[in-house]
Amino acid sequence: MSVTAAKGFTAAGIAAGIKENGNPDLALVVNNGPRLAAAGVFTSNRVKAAPVLWSEQVLKGGQLTAVVLNSGGANACTGPKGFQDTHATAEKTADSLNSAGLDDTGGHSPGWIAVCSTGLIGILLPMDKVRRGIDKAVAQLSPHGGEKAAIAIKTTDTVHKTSVVQGDGWTVGGMAKGAGMLAPGLATMLVVLTTDADVDSDSLDKALRAATKVTFDRVDSDGCMSTNDTVLLLASGASQITPEYAEFAEAVRAVCDDLGQQLIRDAEGAGKDIRIEVVNAASEDDAVEVGRSIARNNLLKCAIHGEDPNWGRVLSAIGTTSAAFEPDLLNVAINGVWVCKNGSVGEDRDQVDMRYREVHIVADLAAGTETATIWTNDLTAEYVHENSAYSS
Amino acid sequence: MSVTAAKGFTAAGIAAGIKENGNPDLALVVNNGPRLAAAGVFTSNRVKAAPVLWSEQVLKGGQLTAVVLNSGGANACTGPKGFQDTHATAEKTADSLNSAGLDDTGGHSPGWIAVCSTGLIGILLPMDKVRRGIDKAVAQLSPHGGEKAAIAIKTTDTVHKTSVVQGDGWTVGGMAKGAGMLAPGLATMLVVLTTDADVDSDSLDKALRAATKVTFDRVDSDGCMSTNDTVLLLASGASQITPEYAEFAEAVRAVCDDLGQQLIRDAEGAGKDIRIEVVNAASEDDAVEVGRSIARNNLLKCAIHGEDPNWGRVLSAIGTTSAAFEPDLLNVAINGVWVCKNGSVGEDRDQVDMRYREVHIVADLAAGTETATIWTNDLTAEYVHENSAYSS
Repeated sequence: MSVTAAKGFTAAGIAAGIKENGNPDLALVVNNGPRLAAAGVFTSNRVKAAPVLWSEQVLKGGQLTAVVLNSGGANACTGPKGFQDTHATAEKTADSLNSAGLDDTGGHSPGWIAVCSTGLIGILLPMDKVRRGIDKAVAQLSPHGGEKAAIAIKTTDTVHKTSVVQGDGWTVGGMAKGAGMLAPGLATMLVVLTTDADVDSDSLDKALRAATKVTFDRVDSDGCMSTNDTVLLLASGASQITPEYAEFAEAVRAVCDDLGQQLIRDAEGAGKDIRIEVVNAASEDDAVEVGRSIARNNLLKCAIHGEDPNWGRVLSAIGTTSAAFEPDLLNVAINGVWVCKNGSVGEDRDQVDMRYREVHIVADLAAGTETATIWTNDLTAEYVHENSAYSS
Repeated sequence: MSVTAAKGFTAAGIAAGIKENGNPDLALVVNNGPRLAAAGVFTSNRVKAAPVLWSEQVLKGGQLTAVVLNSGGANACTGPKGFQDTHATAEKTADSLNSAGLDDTGGHSPGWIAVCSTGLIGILLPMDKVRRGIDKAVAQLSPHGGEKAAIAIKTTDTVHKTSVVQGDGWTVGGMAKGAGMLAPGLATMLVVLTTDADVDSDSLDKALRAATKVTFDRVDSDGCMSTNDTVLLLASGASQITPEYAEFAEAVRAVCDDLGQQLIRDAEGAGKDIRIEVVNAASEDDAVEVGRSIARNNLLKCAIHGEDPNWGRVLSAIGTTSAAFEPDLLNVAINGVWVCKNGSVGEDRDQVDMRYREVHIVADLAAGTETATIWTNDLTAEYVHENSAYSS
């Protein structure tokens, strides 16, 4: 059900011809109100794609009537022309929606329309195809269009990703794409979440930032940060119910967590999903720094691929951080076996069973009470293959 | 000629049986004076191997009579027993050298003997074999033993690495090992440099730090920092010549640079050597930060492996740094073709010839006049294979 699980939303996903292989490549999500509240979180990369620059501006008003997304081209590093194209995409979407007269939101304006793009960096979009695609998508808008929208934003994703959490009379749903360049703040991901809860944009913003901080921001598949990451949350208010903030925020977190897990499970070329749980840290920041350092250690990621519980590589990764710890108090467990105790050899590493896809590493810093969990993948020949051939 | 190119040094390299395959695994370098000055630079990893903790202490005196090195085991994360083993290794080396009575340095003391180890983390050394190996190495010490010493410190190195620079009547020579876990501050490298120049330990220290900062510290093959990195410089004074400091420092830099290049060329599984030159940075620190970020971008390293001039991945790596730059002023050249100009599409990427092993990336930050060069390698299926099978 994706973005159309919540009442008040319609969506479509179509093939506009941006992708040379003819696969679906343009998605549209429309908020039919009555409320038009929205919030967004964007990449922290300082090299931002044109659609990110555009959507960041648009979101300052706290209102969106629609989101138009394309795969097949990131429109990043495309200069002033790229930004003009993004602007033109929003204008065309507003015009096409207004011409269709499908809703009573009082008319669409480009300034209420977010644009998201994903694909190869440094290529201008074929705007004629984008314009015709927008007309086609508007014509196919449907309250059952969520799945098709989720399919149209795939790039190297092998599956489309959707999630829904039901509240008491209200719903949060969403779709995501992302398979490579998965890293914090955020991954190469486009995510659109919708809700029919009657929530204002400040509360949406607060709930969304709290959720992404502990979900998408802690998915670190390959340490590479994208230029296009966007996570949007739109509220239609169509349920006419305003949930308790904590209950609503938890639903948003749960949908983000589920989508984040789906991103990790579909990461390019990965054979293992690695859950790195840092415990007994002096601060949450320390726990995240240590988790990320472990997640980005290529040698460890290779070892996990080889089903080798090489805890020395965990310690060498911890040692590069500025977190509070004493080397001779560190403990490391891999799949439940404490292979490193007090910074030295612990239980028999031959007891570690690594045959399954999920691998669980616990790094005990013995320096406090804080914890954080970071997700990553192993490093495989398939990852190298996929990413050495992507743009050629 | 390696560490015995300079007068006043003897060396040996033998098979002590630490490696199960019977390859050479123990090296000894002895300074026969008359001067016994020394300096050292060590890993900045906070998880330090026992031999690093030992040698850091020993070097505080500014004097070394010998360095004993083993491959086949890093003696890292081995707790108090590991440190006792390092201490015992230095004691045994002093005893054996004193028993042999080969020199007139006034006798060897454990406190003047540095110990270096390399190999798998978390394994105690077979000390009986180490002790017997030390006796064997002392018996084979020779002013022509430099090559054998260089061979005995290899781990996954496919070739041994040596370098010599001649001054006016004096010499700087050295040997290095290192093929994986190559990263800054330093790489997984053991390096012993020797000179017969008559230089005091303060000048050695100054020259060595200046040299490693712009050579070994800028070799970043896989972003992984080791627990055992050690670079030592010993001066015998046997030439009885004290060169100008600048001339001496340049010779030390040249030897470090040559050995650093050899490390990159022999990096595990690598098919390309990538020279990342950051120019027009606001500061040298900015240039190094940007160079390192590019060097550690797995997606770019995969693209280079696929001979794909994917400059978008260079920009996305620059964008994650805190360096001074404006995204729309960035320029990137790959093998001489300015594929990115003003943050957008530049010259035709099809003009880029990437058939050769060396790849040259220039990142122009357009923010100042400083520059730095970082060396890295591509990411290959062979790297994954070597490092998924290393300890098993």
